[in-house]
Amino acid sequence: MKLNIITIGDELLYGQTIDTNSAWMAQQLNANGWEVYEKIAVGDSKKNIIDALIRSMDSVDVVLITGGLGPTSDDLTMPTLAEFFNSSIVLNNEVLNDISSMLTPRGIPLNENNRKQAYVPEKCMPIRNKLGTAPGLWFNEKGKIVVSMPGVPHEMRGMMNDVVLPKLFEINNHEVLVHKFILTIGIAEAILAEKIERWEKNLPPKLRLAYLPSPGMVKLRLTAKGNNKEELEKLITQQVELLKPIIYNYIFGYDDDTLASAIGKLLRKHHLTLSVAESCTGGYISHLITEIAGCSDYFEGGVVSYSNIIKTNILEVKTESLNEAGAVSKKVVEEMAWGANKAFGTDFSVATSGIAGPTGGSKDKPVGTVWIAVAYKNKIKSEKFNFGNNRERNIIRASNMALMMLRNEIISEFE
Amino acid sequence: MKLNIITIGDELLYGQTIDTNSAWMAQQLNANGWEVYEKIAVGDSKKNIIDALIRSMDSVDVVLITGGLGPTSDDLTMPTLAEFFNSSIVLNNEVLNDISSMLTPRGIPLNENNRKQAYVPEKCMPIRNKLGTAPGLWFNEKGKIVVSMPGVPHEMRGMMNDVVLPKLFEINNHEVLVHKFILTIGIAEAILAEKIERWEKNLPPKLRLAYLPSPGMVKLRLTAKGNNKEELEKLITQQVELLKPIIYNYIFGYDDDTLASAIGKLLRKHHLTLSVAESCTGGYISHLITEIAGCSDYFEGGVVSYSNIIKTNILEVKTESLNEAGAVSKKVVEEMAWGANKAFGTDFSVATSGIAGPTGGSKDKPVGTVWIAVAYKNKIKSEKFNFGNNRERNIIRASNMALMMLRNEIISEFE
Repeated sequence: MKLNIITIGDELLYGQTIDTNSAWMAQQLNANGWEVYEKIAVGDSKKNIIDALIRSMDSVDVVLITGGLGPTSDDLTMPTLAEFFNSSIVLNNEVLNDISSMLTPRGIPLNENNRKQAYVPEKCMPIRNKLGTAPGLWFNEKGKIVVSMPGVPHEMRGMMNDVVLPKLFEINNHEVLVHKFILTIGIAEAILAEKIERWEKNLPPKLRLAYLPSPGMVKLRLTAKGNNKEELEKLITQQVELLKPIIYNYIFGYDDDTLASAIGKLLRKHHLTLSVAESCTGGYISHLITEIAGCSDYFEGGVVSYSNIIKTNILEVKTESLNEAGAVSKKVVEEMAWGANKAFGTDFSVATSGIAGPTGGSKDKPVGTVWIAVAYKNKIKSEKFNFGNNRERNIIRASNMALMMLRNEIISEFE
Repeated sequence: MKLNIITIGDELLYGQTIDTNSAWMAQQLNANGWEVYEKIAVGDSKKNIIDALIRSMDSVDVVLITGGLGPTSDDLTMPTLAEFFNSSIVLNNEVLNDISSMLTPRGIPLNENNRKQAYVPEKCMPIRNKLGTAPGLWFNEKGKIVVSMPGVPHEMRGMMNDVVLPKLFEINNHEVLVHKFILTIGIAEAILAEKIERWEKNLPPKLRLAYLPSPGMVKLRLTAKGNNKEELEKLITQQVELLKPIIYNYIFGYDDDTLASAIGKLLRKHHLTLSVAESCTGGYISHLITEIAGCSDYFEGGVVSYSNIIKTNILEVKTESLNEAGAVSKKVVEEMAWGANKAFGTDFSVATSGIAGPTGGSKDKPVGTVWIAVAYKNKIKSEKFNFGNNRERNIIRASNMALMMLRNEIISEFE
């Protein structure tokens, strides 16, 4: 079963908001046996909303809409749907109740803008919003289902989970999609494709393979479609088992794994601990590690040593190393890694020191120069990189590279 | 001038990739006087790509496409466009040259998959890809322009900057869009709308206002459209000046400001320094601060004290405080803030201690409980929050709240 998602809002077309809603919706829908046929983003314009609706209803039976349900004057979705379905707009007392019982305990008076949100098209079934003031709207007209939800992510998610997904699940004929991701690192897409060409050609016809490259890694996605979820999962598992020996060294995880979660699994398995000393990455490595639930099993902590004083005081970097080699140097980054290992008493530690930019570069050490070190007991490995002149990307790429180096060291010592 | 963006890839419809490309493209296009009429995401299917193309060419004259140009078997965009424009596919020697001069220095052999990428539709002008192997394709057929670019973000950006934007800029009749964001904090959308209702009603007809709410903040966007950029900017500035006195206390910044960059400006202005001691936020506050270029002017550094040993050793939190009140307590978070102020020798410091989840909660301190403290000289302010049971959101909301509290303290001391 296929449906369309229409996202509404000028901010989407101006590029001021990145649409994360439709990705979350698609994942949930997939797990419930629904596929997204097309996603359309349109502006806050009655004509464009109606155009997208008409086109969608030509190709699918269900349309999910997000956005444009707020209390302010730029929100057009509700009146547009009323017009489209030729429905009058009426005050709904249950919705009004919901709104006032949401605002009253928070000491917010019910104003005219909020009251307006209790007016809904007569032809729709309102969907309760437990997390905000705008109700959802469920239309079942002319053999088609059109559902409108707010664009605020947690409000939309609440409605999807409570009402929309259960109702859609009932309608669906239970055909399901099963995905499996195989996550590889350290091999280019075209080389990977060559290596697994024979395996790919022999895939059973129910399976589809996709390559999803991102800097430094390639995700392989196997997708199976059919009626029997268990059978599809078994089919996929068989193929993954055949794939494993071909690219064993490049696989670092599966499905929702991240580099940080894969490292976490390795550290936990071998009862190892980790600390971090970050200069140019500014806390981002710590953040990637602490995003993973349960990381306190292996992560002791980190220091963001932005100033040199912290490098000497907490990480015991030698003043002469800073003076002679400079903060961005093999010497200092190695001393930072040793210092973190000592201060935190960990098995492994990772350190970064670099020039994230846009200023601070020199001829010898241009913006983007980053030293990374990984210390384990009395061993240390350090390497110099240049990640270019974009500050944001430098932080991300240096952090990913540090995790990659860490992973390699753990594997070469313990696997 | 309006155009459509079509993004291609099953991963977009499965919700496995969040589309950031089209947002970036839209921003650049806006700045060059182009508006996005509609964004359409379709799967890796010939039929669906052609459907989206036909519909787009009904409403606009220019269509930009990203995705599906890779070297592997799931990439369909090039043959689909060749079919659509009724063009044969030929080997392009310049493209082949580009590909081999990209791979050779990196020691990667030119394999069959890469060679395939040098075959392009005869009817198109290939666009050089300086950052990858897939060329872009520029079609100018039947009075319409269709441009296909890779989905890899930095490759697409390179082509946009080098070729597509300059060429589109020539075509455009120079009508421009000017945006101005006014960023507010601590006021709900509906209340804000009420406060500025009169101002909004008196806006000149060339201006449009939009409310863009996100947790804890509401962005106001003023948009002006016309031929004279300077005049539009002046018009917007006038209206912002009229708005300021109405909601002065709630405005924390404009345009690309973030809470962290607004705090950075305040700290720099008053020659103040900052340090951070993070437990549950795990480095994310440091990351938000160090994302801002030039933060080394005021940011000394931070400690991610995930384990209690680090809290006592580096931040000098008292063992009895940890034993009596527990790590997640007013007492410990205040000692962490004092400790950071002392260790880093800063004017201000911010500390967080909480239970991010999903485990670690208790009846007294459920998952989501977070203590936040802001220390300044001999003063301290601390507050307890509960942000719910989603780990990711806890980290983000606790970090934003910590920055909000910090901002309030700086303002009440210095502004």
